[in-house]
Amino acid sequence: MTDKKPSSEGLRGQVAGKTAICTVGKAGKGLTYRGYGIEDLARNTQFEEVAYLIMYGHLPNASELKLYQEKLRAMRVLPQPLIDTLERIPKETHPMEVMRTACSLLGNLEPEKEFSQQHEAANRLLASFPGIICYWYRYSHEGVRISVTNRESDNLGAYFLELLFDKVPSELHSRVMNVSFILYAEHEFNASTFTARICASTLSDIYSCITSAIGSLRGPLHGGANEEAMDMIDSFDSPQEAVEAIPKMIAEKKKIMGFGHAVYRKSDPRSAIIKTYARQLADEAGSSEIYDIAEAIEEVMWSTKELFPNADFFHAPAYKYMGLPTKLFTPLFVCGRTAGWAAHVFEQRSDNRIIRPAAEYTGPDLRKVKPIGER
Amino acid sequence: MTDKKPSSEGLRGQVAGKTAICTVGKAGKGLTYRGYGIEDLARNTQFEEVAYLIMYGHLPNASELKLYQEKLRAMRVLPQPLIDTLERIPKETHPMEVMRTACSLLGNLEPEKEFSQQHEAANRLLASFPGIICYWYRYSHEGVRISVTNRESDNLGAYFLELLFDKVPSELHSRVMNVSFILYAEHEFNASTFTARICASTLSDIYSCITSAIGSLRGPLHGGANEEAMDMIDSFDSPQEAVEAIPKMIAEKKKIMGFGHAVYRKSDPRSAIIKTYARQLADEAGSSEIYDIAEAIEEVMWSTKELFPNADFFHAPAYKYMGLPTKLFTPLFVCGRTAGWAAHVFEQRSDNRIIRPAAEYTGPDLRKVKPIGER
Repeated sequence: MTDKKPSSEGLRGQVAGKTAICTVGKAGKGLTYRGYGIEDLARNTQFEEVAYLIMYGHLPNASELKLYQEKLRAMRVLPQPLIDTLERIPKETHPMEVMRTACSLLGNLEPEKEFSQQHEAANRLLASFPGIICYWYRYSHEGVRISVTNRESDNLGAYFLELLFDKVPSELHSRVMNVSFILYAEHEFNASTFTARICASTLSDIYSCITSAIGSLRGPLHGGANEEAMDMIDSFDSPQEAVEAIPKMIAEKKKIMGFGHAVYRKSDPRSAIIKTYARQLADEAGSSEIYDIAEAIEEVMWSTKELFPNADFFHAPAYKYMGLPTKLFTPLFVCGRTAGWAAHVFEQRSDNRIIRPAAEYTGPDLRKVKPIGER
Repeated sequence: MTDKKPSSEGLRGQVAGKTAICTVGKAGKGLTYRGYGIEDLARNTQFEEVAYLIMYGHLPNASELKLYQEKLRAMRVLPQPLIDTLERIPKETHPMEVMRTACSLLGNLEPEKEFSQQHEAANRLLASFPGIICYWYRYSHEGVRISVTNRESDNLGAYFLELLFDKVPSELHSRVMNVSFILYAEHEFNASTFTARICASTLSDIYSCITSAIGSLRGPLHGGANEEAMDMIDSFDSPQEAVEAIPKMIAEKKKIMGFGHAVYRKSDPRSAIIKTYARQLADEAGSSEIYDIAEAIEEVMWSTKELFPNADFFHAPAYKYMGLPTKLFTPLFVCGRTAGWAAHVFEQRSDNRIIRPAAEYTGPDLRKVKPIGER
């Protein structure tokens, strides 16, 4: 332990490993997956192409994509013991915790026996997460046992909406879900991904890694931010009210969720993309109130604090306009991010050393145990 | 991102935060919990005293200990939906994965709604892990539905043996389990604990943190090592066979599990303690073969590689002599380590910043998405 170096808090700016998957915030902005800019991917691909890119290293051609979508479709069925458990999880449970349990249990029922099965296991999770969360949600909230197979939608975003609303979504809603999953698919060494990599570094199974990542993403400082942003937007009745309240909240040192970022310094490139779709959804709905409140918050946060919205902030109104319940916002994040988590597990395994940092000790000096009668 | 520093692989030797809970390997050796040496604690305390020390910061006096043990005893009952799920997990599932699912599901049924409940939740997990794993094990392997309440044993180690074997354990076995849980209770920023801290740093719930930690501990480079050590010891019929085989295995670059350590440089202080008990158990059994094989491996590893046994290695024969199935070795580790994980979650929450390191990018330069027909 002679090589200890001082570390910034939360390992901020400390290089914890190598990756070929993603760049975040080069020159304070910008996001690429395997070299492709996020704007380019959001405009020109479907989520399944991006998941394939992230996990297999290249964009699929037409026949690879067709096979891949067929594979995912065939993996949607949920095993009965998993359904039995989903039916026993109370309505009040946070849906992220439901996903955490379901991911772990699926690993019990269909274990990754060796690492050669890693892509299969990752695809299985990608394919079944929409069914898992929608099955539980509709059973616990509506008393309905839905079929997760026999659905028309090919792509996972549309499939999610079809499961939740029992109808094939519109072209626009389908596109927004696709883009949303693309934006959420990968983000370098964020907290949940780093959790998955540490777990992978012990050579544990991939279900352990993804379960861990879900547990981390659940936190309000991480994926939970999109739900917190929605709750805040919901708390205002008009843009004017937001404009007046936000500076007070800042003065009271209340955290405004959905703004700023651990890595980006100038802007989060995902925000402008999802904001455009939030605007389109507001137009489609013929009611721009939620959007207007969100935009007013964006403006006041910039003018007072020079803080920009991150990926989560305009996701909140976009999801809301599509009728998605706020508590499913972070599970939607999981549906996209599973691709990135899995790719990082593969990458960690391919050149592994167990991740085991050091700590600075601040506790008591050596002392002797006193007999219990003398304490 | 101007403050990136080069990092050793696996964050080895990099300070990732502060802790007042534990020191590991000062001057290459030694282990303290809250300032007390591990030898002192192993000799003079019960596991519940150590769990209390780690989680509450001081050794309990007699009345605190009595209350604490009563509290834990009252928390042993398993909710029916958890039992229903345990009964649906196949016999072939790795027990660590069963614990991962059960921990997550218990959090669904009895969520930590606010951080003020953190000690209650941690104690609930400590109290119920022996029942969880023994219930599942005996149901799946023996077809028996055991009662996890109505047991005589007060302390958790003895309680585990009583659940598994349906009889109150001997004084020696009880003591060994106590010592084993003490040795496994805490170990600074090891991979599973660091996983729990990252999860905690997103302000996620404690069940997410402990579930993540179980997933990491499962890996054969981490907690899984005690099972791998047992499998290796079992593969030899005599000390002589081991002495001849080990150098060949080293020459073939096979990993010999249970030796060396990421932090300790001279010795792992836990090894000598559990070795003494393994010897006593061999004497009690009137059969020293397993112990002799283990000791022969220890000697040949030192003479050929100067590698010392870590905590896991002599745990293997000790557990074996008590009749514990090899696949329950790592779950036993969980039963002790839960105290340490929980304390690190509390500590992270008390002075938190989200843990989000950086990565060195090694992937392709910026490129354009080609239309799918041209790929």
